[in-house]
Amino acid sequence: MGWGAALSLIRAGFPTHGVDLRPDVLTRFTAAGGLAHQTPAPAVAGAAAVLVFVVNAGQAEAVLFGPAGAVAAADPGTLFILSVTMAPTAAVALAARLVQAGMLSLDAPVSGGAAKALAGEMTVMASGTAAAFAAAEPVLAAVATKVFHLGDRPGPASQVKMINQLLAGVHIAAMGEAMSLAAGIGLDLATVHQVITASAGNSWMFENRGAHVVAGDYAPRSAVDIFVKDLGIVAGEAAAAGMPSPLTTTALALFQQAADAGMGRQDDAAVALLLARQGGIRLPGDAE
Amino acid sequence: MGWGAALSLIRAGFPTHGVDLRPDVLTRFTAAGGLAHQTPAPAVAGAAAVLVFVVNAGQAEAVLFGPAGAVAAADPGTLFILSVTMAPTAAVALAARLVQAGMLSLDAPVSGGAAKALAGEMTVMASGTAAAFAAAEPVLAAVATKVFHLGDRPGPASQVKMINQLLAGVHIAAMGEAMSLAAGIGLDLATVHQVITASAGNSWMFENRGAHVVAGDYAPRSAVDIFVKDLGIVAGEAAAAGMPSPLTTTALALFQQAADAGMGRQDDAAVALLLARQGGIRLPGDAE
Repeated sequence: MGWGAALSLIRAGFPTHGVDLRPDVLTRFTAAGGLAHQTPAPAVAGAAAVLVFVVNAGQAEAVLFGPAGAVAAADPGTLFILSVTMAPTAAVALAARLVQAGMLSLDAPVSGGAAKALAGEMTVMASGTAAAFAAAEPVLAAVATKVFHLGDRPGPASQVKMINQLLAGVHIAAMGEAMSLAAGIGLDLATVHQVITASAGNSWMFENRGAHVVAGDYAPRSAVDIFVKDLGIVAGEAAAAGMPSPLTTTALALFQQAADAGMGRQDDAAVALLLARQGGIRLPGDAE
Repeated sequence: MGWGAALSLIRAGFPTHGVDLRPDVLTRFTAAGGLAHQTPAPAVAGAAAVLVFVVNAGQAEAVLFGPAGAVAAADPGTLFILSVTMAPTAAVALAARLVQAGMLSLDAPVSGGAAKALAGEMTVMASGTAAAFAAAEPVLAAVATKVFHLGDRPGPASQVKMINQLLAGVHIAAMGEAMSLAAGIGLDLATVHQVITASAGNSWMFENRGAHVVAGDYAPRSAVDIFVKDLGIVAGEAAAAGMPSPLTTTALALFQQAADAGMGRQDDAAVALLLARQGGIRLPGDAE
């Protein structure tokens, strides 16, 4: 998602600095017209806005406040757009530290997938002060086609994103349960996919990830490990709020079992392989 | 669904007999141009096709083979279209008895809801012999806009419908978990519904039943009790096939708890009320 956002900014005419640990990514970024760095500090001096696309709260804290981190090197009043899927409590805490450091902060998790990001067509769930929204406007216009304004402070955006991840994760696991059962009772998976996508049992994830199962293709677009993380966040925040989360907990256990079985870096649709194996059958593309 | 199918047949010019236990339904059916009966036997003599819309396998057996049942009164070679959501094993067994009695049988569960049925626009998942499909063609053309041909014998159609119900039931329960958690952490439910329906966490059921939760409207379109039945079928058939069904089992327990709490005849979206109460909060429209 970060790569797509960076290319969208270059395309929109912004002088764009990019930070990544992988030399090959930096080489490609330079070739695409960007300014490449291996640590955040040199990239942010003089920048009007800093977009953070990392995988979890720990990484976000590291790139913001760790050694050669962004905040110490940024001009006062720089806008930080945090497009990280993390616990809402973590998003609120990081935003508070940014404000304390004299920065603007926008809680701004994204969705839409890598292809949409490359096209500058991400969906952004955003919350923050009017000043943060005003500063973010030209940047968001370059990277997103849909921006939801979810509140005047950091937190609600990450909360809504968390609800989205709850549903996405449970729906992927349900797809795996449906497809493995369909195979177990002798149905043709392509036919099942075709009928369900035209019926009331459909979901965005059944349609998208079910196609991976039909094709037997588990090259990771989004990996099992991501949902171990995201549903772990949901379960933790639900417990903290005193709310039940039985389906989240059940789906989380399946993703954890898949990771334990060595499928953590495979596509999250691999939860279907796990369930099929538990039933004593193999789905197409199950290499082991 | 049966009411909509019957009116669609009248509209298409078929002399249409209807059977129901409720006098008021029969009065309305006569007014709509149909021929009304309180038992199956007098309705089927001379009929070319008999459509069966009842709620479970037990009712299907009763109207077919019970006292004043349809089969004993039907002409040899009459087509029976079984549009009942039941265990695939039950669908196969009933079809075998129909064939043994000299009848044609089409396994033909439907989806789409009452409004689509009224418009003659149901979706039919069908499997059966070529002779059964040929005999069914003019009837299906009158009641449905989409007919999936899922095999040359009874069984596969009910199997695919069962997979659809697995997903539908888990998705409704996931909607309930998502909405109750959203309320528990202070989010506005209408906003959550708007954002999720435009995001990867969406499902047909989240969009449809989530709207009931936002409106606080639990008038039954489809009741909690239906998913106690349908997910019970899924869990039983999965166990018989040796396949795991952890999400089905979890969702079934929630629908059962909702029924035990007196919500069995409320809209199936009432699973959200159950989860909210378990978390110590009340959603809009929770009367108790």
